[in-house]
Amino acid sequence: MILVDGKRIDTVSALDRGLAYGDGVFRTLVLRAGKTVAWPSHYATLAADCTRLHLPCPAETSLHDDLTQIAAQAPDCVVKITVTRGVGQRGYAMPAHSVGVRIVASSALPAYPQAYYDDGIVARVCDLRLARQPALAGIKHLNRLENVLARSEWQDADITEGILLDTQDQVIGGCMSNLFIRLGNTLLTPALTHSGIAGVTRARLLALAPRLNLSVQVQALALPALLAADEVMMCNSVIGIWRVRQLGDKHWTGAQYTPALRNLLEQSID
Amino acid sequence: MILVDGKRIDTVSALDRGLAYGDGVFRTLVLRAGKTVAWPSHYATLAADCTRLHLPCPAETSLHDDLTQIAAQAPDCVVKITVTRGVGQRGYAMPAHSVGVRIVASSALPAYPQAYYDDGIVARVCDLRLARQPALAGIKHLNRLENVLARSEWQDADITEGILLDTQDQVIGGCMSNLFIRLGNTLLTPALTHSGIAGVTRARLLALAPRLNLSVQVQALALPALLAADEVMMCNSVIGIWRVRQLGDKHWTGAQYTPALRNLLEQSID
Repeated sequence: MILVDGKRIDTVSALDRGLAYGDGVFRTLVLRAGKTVAWPSHYATLAADCTRLHLPCPAETSLHDDLTQIAAQAPDCVVKITVTRGVGQRGYAMPAHSVGVRIVASSALPAYPQAYYDDGIVARVCDLRLARQPALAGIKHLNRLENVLARSEWQDADITEGILLDTQDQVIGGCMSNLFIRLGNTLLTPALTHSGIAGVTRARLLALAPRLNLSVQVQALALPALLAADEVMMCNSVIGIWRVRQLGDKHWTGAQYTPALRNLLEQSID
Repeated sequence: MILVDGKRIDTVSALDRGLAYGDGVFRTLVLRAGKTVAWPSHYATLAADCTRLHLPCPAETSLHDDLTQIAAQAPDCVVKITVTRGVGQRGYAMPAHSVGVRIVASSALPAYPQAYYDDGIVARVCDLRLARQPALAGIKHLNRLENVLARSEWQDADITEGILLDTQDQVIGGCMSNLFIRLGNTLLTPALTHSGIAGVTRARLLALAPRLNLSVQVQALALPALLAADEVMMCNSVIGIWRVRQLGDKHWTGAQYTPALRNLLEQSID
């Protein structure tokens, strides 16, 4: 089901600034048994991203109505919410009074192999280096060509995710996920001040990890430190959390904290 | 008039990857008396940009048909051609066989004040610094949030264009234009190996300038060198070429080569 501004329409104006300039933001979230997992976090993050780009954020009640419509038809699905600045005149200048357009689209939950959860995934380090742009870092905006190009680097179905470094060779995250490493009792995720997307599942894990007596750190992470970690994990709202079992020649054996972190995510769905 | 894949439709799928990821490229060009100015250069550049992003480029005959339809209704207008990767499944991976979507939209020629041509424009240096991304540099792709944010920095109608530097404080171009400086008999434009859009008018000026006994250079340009230039010019396919008469406290008096370069552009419309 696709809803554009609450109506069952599956098209947008060819002059929408989301298309022209990637002038908008999005969120990907999951409905389970009709309930939106971690909705307050998703809405707060959507609103914060809109604020950074001076975009009008849809009212929470409007999105709630959209999600109710979708849940009635597909109680378990993936939902993507896109907010654009809507149609504007030609040129980069933001319209003085943009109304914005909201697109809410459902799709089937992906059927990932159970082994990704039980045994972990194989990852690779992408060749593409993310540009450093503090003005856009962290925002889940619609300028995602770097992710598209990075994801096009491999076709090997045995490789599930690509790890992205920035142009200063700092680890930022995955093509479609955020990344954590664990070293002893410390869980660390890269600071996203210059590149990357600050996902909701990342924020939830930072908040939940202390319940497992893990301390959390958000800081720069170089690849050698990642390779020396006790455990490497990738997360997003759709996959939850997977550990990385192999990266090039490096193998990590045995899940340690990943299952417990996954349980925390699944039990704390608000 | 808006044509989507040659048909008079003014919408695209809400699932188009151009909207989802800015996964596409565009060109802005001008029709005069029904003729597309500098079409061979525009098509060659469109094709080159598509190649860099592994996008299917529309056949030249298809675009020619679109432009013929538009010229019949509006012989003098601005035309924007957008090529996207079309609808794909959820996720960043490029579809194995994407057909692509082409959008050709006309709009009125902007009515810029004659003084911009006669006397020059006032520019400013933008606060935003362009990220350095060699994989995307030069391409006129749909990831243009940097331009949108930079253009939002000023509302003063007396300022016509913003000058963009990169994160290493090198001059790259304007928000909507390419930039040249002239120093004596040398015309210099920034190298666009890490940021910026390599526009068709920039390429035409590089090719045409030797006719005025100007030598051309493409290299790094720092702001102090720009301020020390004899003449500063901004160009694109719609505006042609304007000289900058003021940038902050710096004033440049008297056009020198700008009118002659404009004449060359106007006389060499192929």
